[in-house]
Amino acid sequence: MTKIATIGCGLIGQGWATVFAKAGFDVAMYDPAPAAAEHALAAMTQRVADLVAFDLIASSDAPAILNRLTVATSLEEALQDVVYVQESGPERVEVKREITERLDTLAAPDVPIGSSTSGISASRYCEDITGRHRCLVVHPINPPHLIPAVEIVPTQWTDPRIVSITTELMRACGRETIVLTKEIDGFVVNRLQGALLEEAFKLVGSGIVSASDLDKAICDGLGLRWSFMGPMQTIHLNAPEGVEQYVERYGAMYRGFGLGPYDDVDWKEIVDSGLKAQLETLIPVADIPTKQAERDRKLMALLRHKAREQTDH
Amino acid sequence: MTKIATIGCGLIGQGWATVFAKAGFDVAMYDPAPAAAEHALAAMTQRVADLVAFDLIASSDAPAILNRLTVATSLEEALQDVVYVQESGPERVEVKREITERLDTLAAPDVPIGSSTSGISASRYCEDITGRHRCLVVHPINPPHLIPAVEIVPTQWTDPRIVSITTELMRACGRETIVLTKEIDGFVVNRLQGALLEEAFKLVGSGIVSASDLDKAICDGLGLRWSFMGPMQTIHLNAPEGVEQYVERYGAMYRGFGLGPYDDVDWKEIVDSGLKAQLETLIPVADIPTKQAERDRKLMALLRHKAREQTDH
Repeated sequence: MTKIATIGCGLIGQGWATVFAKAGFDVAMYDPAPAAAEHALAAMTQRVADLVAFDLIASSDAPAILNRLTVATSLEEALQDVVYVQESGPERVEVKREITERLDTLAAPDVPIGSSTSGISASRYCEDITGRHRCLVVHPINPPHLIPAVEIVPTQWTDPRIVSITTELMRACGRETIVLTKEIDGFVVNRLQGALLEEAFKLVGSGIVSASDLDKAICDGLGLRWSFMGPMQTIHLNAPEGVEQYVERYGAMYRGFGLGPYDDVDWKEIVDSGLKAQLETLIPVADIPTKQAERDRKLMALLRHKAREQTDH
Repeated sequence: MTKIATIGCGLIGQGWATVFAKAGFDVAMYDPAPAAAEHALAAMTQRVADLVAFDLIASSDAPAILNRLTVATSLEEALQDVVYVQESGPERVEVKREITERLDTLAAPDVPIGSSTSGISASRYCEDITGRHRCLVVHPINPPHLIPAVEIVPTQWTDPRIVSITTELMRACGRETIVLTKEIDGFVVNRLQGALLEEAFKLVGSGIVSASDLDKAICDGLGLRWSFMGPMQTIHLNAPEGVEQYVERYGAMYRGFGLGPYDDVDWKEIVDSGLKAQLETLIPVADIPTKQAERDRKLMALLRHKAREQTDH
């Protein structure tokens, strides 16, 4: 059984269909507006061609990928024999509740029902659904067929087996999974973006820097490393003895900026109570010099890539 | 006159010397510890070789670049006939004051004296210096010879002409300049990093997500776009009518996350009072679809680059 249903054929649904078909799944696309589904199928041809042009799909694979995509004329047909359902409907709690109820009635037991919602925790619509144990958020970053990160957010009722089946499936589709232990508004990605935007608005709004110069701080500064290494491993490598030393050296400096409700967030305590252990499992202190050299090589390779891009266009 | 002095020969000083020599300047490197300067000069050979290996310096240019580097045996010798001084000494106010005083005495009038400090605003050490009008912070992001972003931070006494001469010189050296209108703790880059870290510590500390998964939210998510487009232009392109519409649509959502002292930062007011105008000058609303397509092409090219990197290693 290698069939997945994508419900809702807007840009997000189309992105998901591309991801699943590329990974070898048969994909049944369904939209309550039949014209939307047909239009989406046509748009997929261009999307796959774009991926071929950038070597992200081998051109020899493209026909098979497109062949795996079909438009289902009913929800029943879409859900027949699926191993997974990805719902990308409108962002309204009532609509989510109604459609998830129907999906739960029609899909075989224990097939996970993931929602693409970026703003609605699944507990807000699935409490009264019989199969609430298989409902969860599987939030892509736009555009889903390009950005690998996917947030997996269970409710208090989600069966841990559903979380692990979904995580495995997403990994099999080349997704990089961010698994949350519980619901929180905005999940992780949008909270991180929001925190950075909050400071950015403050700096631009106070006239300290232009929007254009602020953007350079990221795209010619922090964002270069962040495109291949996250902020936690970045700071772990920015002190010879790792994150504990980083927080000893720079924690007070950051605190002095008055960036947030610091009373609640004690960096040192968080380091001591698990973060240090986590990061040293990923990168032991003894490996820091090697990893620093690797980071700089990746940075140089990225700069070469950016320079070539600029020459090409 | 095309000579620059770099004062202090640690990693930051070495990075600067590489930047200036690569841009065609003669560079006099000076360190109060002569052995440090000699060691730095030797280390530069490897640094330049690395850049050649990644096509960031043409191999035919490497000998000339290394030839432009000399070690000065005295501060007087280092500063003779320079057009610019970059000081990368220890991060202590007293040391900054003492060395800047000497630099001011020895360098020709109106030669800018930039400090690499990441944590000390120049007003804290230059108030009583005769030439305080030419003192300012010119803060690189580590490592300076790889990361293009440079923050230029004048004090209340800095002559605007000194700011513009320094900005032009940095641009001539291939630097991407972030010009602040006034001093603020942490400048822009570290404030943005701090805001994101604050939220990251909170999420990991509360057990909602592992450090490893949080990192994916950036290096497989937000950081991909941020490596070629800053956060302001990113949100401007994430609504069909630009930033104003983005804030209308998502402002309330971000506010709901409780990320910071929102009472002080009204996104809509900041949009109305200048941010919208700034971003529409950079990207007119009519150009948004074209720029979105360009962003997605850059994203695909970046993904191709990352995939090739992984195959190579």
